[in-house]
Amino acid sequence: MPFFRLNKRSSDSKARKGVLTTFHGDVETPVFMPVGTQGSVKTLTPEDLERTGSKIILHNTYHLYLRPGPQLYRDFGGAHHFSKWNGPILTDSGGYQVFSLADLNKITDDGVTFQSHIDGSYHYFTPESVIDIQKQIGADIIMPLDRPVPYPSEKITAQKANRVTLDWLKISKDSFKNSYNYHDYDQVLFGIVQGGVYPDLRKYAAEETVALDFPGYSVGGLSVGEPQNIMYEMTDHTTEYLPEDKPRYLMGVGKPEDLVTCIGCGIDMFDCVLPTRVGRNGWVYTEKGRMVIKNAEYADDNSPIDANCMCYACKTFSKSYIRHLFNAGEMLGPRLASLHNITFYQRLMENARNAIEEDTYTEWKNEFLAKYTGDDRKK
Amino acid sequence: MPFFRLNKRSSDSKARKGVLTTFHGDVETPVFMPVGTQGSVKTLTPEDLERTGSKIILHNTYHLYLRPGPQLYRDFGGAHHFSKWNGPILTDSGGYQVFSLADLNKITDDGVTFQSHIDGSYHYFTPESVIDIQKQIGADIIMPLDRPVPYPSEKITAQKANRVTLDWLKISKDSFKNSYNYHDYDQVLFGIVQGGVYPDLRKYAAEETVALDFPGYSVGGLSVGEPQNIMYEMTDHTTEYLPEDKPRYLMGVGKPEDLVTCIGCGIDMFDCVLPTRVGRNGWVYTEKGRMVIKNAEYADDNSPIDANCMCYACKTFSKSYIRHLFNAGEMLGPRLASLHNITFYQRLMENARNAIEEDTYTEWKNEFLAKYTGDDRKK
Repeated sequence: MPFFRLNKRSSDSKARKGVLTTFHGDVETPVFMPVGTQGSVKTLTPEDLERTGSKIILHNTYHLYLRPGPQLYRDFGGAHHFSKWNGPILTDSGGYQVFSLADLNKITDDGVTFQSHIDGSYHYFTPESVIDIQKQIGADIIMPLDRPVPYPSEKITAQKANRVTLDWLKISKDSFKNSYNYHDYDQVLFGIVQGGVYPDLRKYAAEETVALDFPGYSVGGLSVGEPQNIMYEMTDHTTEYLPEDKPRYLMGVGKPEDLVTCIGCGIDMFDCVLPTRVGRNGWVYTEKGRMVIKNAEYADDNSPIDANCMCYACKTFSKSYIRHLFNAGEMLGPRLASLHNITFYQRLMENARNAIEEDTYTEWKNEFLAKYTGDDRKK
Repeated sequence: MPFFRLNKRSSDSKARKGVLTTFHGDVETPVFMPVGTQGSVKTLTPEDLERTGSKIILHNTYHLYLRPGPQLYRDFGGAHHFSKWNGPILTDSGGYQVFSLADLNKITDDGVTFQSHIDGSYHYFTPESVIDIQKQIGADIIMPLDRPVPYPSEKITAQKANRVTLDWLKISKDSFKNSYNYHDYDQVLFGIVQGGVYPDLRKYAAEETVALDFPGYSVGGLSVGEPQNIMYEMTDHTTEYLPEDKPRYLMGVGKPEDLVTCIGCGIDMFDCVLPTRVGRNGWVYTEKGRMVIKNAEYADDNSPIDANCMCYACKTFSKSYIRHLFNAGEMLGPRLASLHNITFYQRLMENARNAIEEDTYTEWKNEFLAKYTGDDRKK
């Protein structure tokens, strides 16, 4: 069985529909992956996640490396046996957290030294070590250590980081092939395309990465503060240089409108903390946009967040009750909002897949965006 | 259908088994009622609670009165329609919170003035007003405003408070009978027996309260700091003066060993925040006592908290994973520990009911206590 099969291509956009096949199950694409940063999608159980329609989740290597540590994953027979999520798991490389979260980091051509944000202890990540850590964690899909640049960055900075990323990709590929396998199922390593917001660097990175031949390609270094239209342009530009028969994963993106737009740019896989993070703050998604459930207007509103949503929160509770939970500081509020928001994202992806299947993607996308961003109400 | 039916009496203790019948369902006694302070049993959904075996829950009138307010409950058709717990609900009178939690309180013979702990606003509770609030909330079982005393208190203080409580009980009974009913189902009002730790005051209070004829009797003012043996003695002493054919409710108690002991003193109903409160701090119950799941000894322990427990946490996760959740500050930890602890309490009550049915209560109680308190391991 190939790792990825492309089933359908949209005739009026770059949207595609396919299937990822892993030891822990098949995943239809385009797919959204909820983020279980520390081995738990915040507030939710694996049972809850299944009920949201989620098929694959992400774990953060940086966090799991520091706590509980790769040794424990090895002893447990991998993340699936530890966290009890039985579907596929993708791990990032930890690079993004090292550069954004760790207290101190010092980069050399060989790797990066950083201090733990938990206890200040010193650690060293190399392309080889992060492959080994992810193999121990037992992820189905593994990311190589890369070197993203912040926005804005000078072109020379982006160029140098691009060079480092490409050097590390080669090391990662060799290391992935030759290093020890702790678990008896297949794990796959993606390539990552960087290049900042410079089209020629993106093209170069994509071509060089594709030349190394990976089973899938990540588009990294976007959604780091650049304007939305630049993120869309870079995504659309990068996928031009990626092979049709391999999955494309846009890392760390994004809002519902980003997912819908970037599927149209040929992206197959997404992950983002947004639905759980904003959920914990009482923001909930509906097809007409984001709703701040704490607002006074919902104080005595006996209707659900979204009458069309099949999640437990919408089938059971009123806006009024969920608002009360947030106002009273009850943990059930963040839990219900997270459950709803992930369900909203998964239904959105299901609708996107159906639209691709019916070859009505662009029409569906425009209708969704008009309703969601409120453009239809302005008419 | 009578509100309470006694089905079985233990031949070698005062333990009893019975059934409470309410509009929202029947409840077998002895029963433990999880506490949903602000309209939510912390971290858990009604669906979760059903899975723990819970049949009746408690709400706190003081909290719900302040937020979201009785008017909202009236508009929603009662707490069952707001919180979506479909089983019976018992509300306390708010008195205990006014005396323990509110920033300032001033007691007169007619009621108590207090400042909200939320915003400092002034409020006034009377025996009549708390009946009206609880009628609006729509509780199946309602408590009258009483006047507990702290431990220790001089006898004269306990005596005066006892007098106030008895005066208020009369007012409450009249008010309950004659005031407006907001909902179209039966609600019942219990009497409350105070008297501090003074046997003669307890006897007097019990006899005077029983003379007023309530469908059930609460034993209040215990578990407020007095030694455990005094709490047991006062409970055992008080039930001597309560009628056999009415349920007895020991308010705010307690630990597993307290429940098991006080069932033997003739108590039928209990409520306590302990299983959820200690659960949020990572303490979990087992038949061999309380376990601090954060302890290093569980770091790589692949077994469940309790192999005999049927709760989702025990059927799914290892101690190691739940310990990791607590150490990483993941909200799923408190949720799983709360779920387990309430399930533990409900299984304990089920075992107690079975032991009463088989007329082996004292033997079962002693076996449980020996194992739970570790006395059997000292041999």
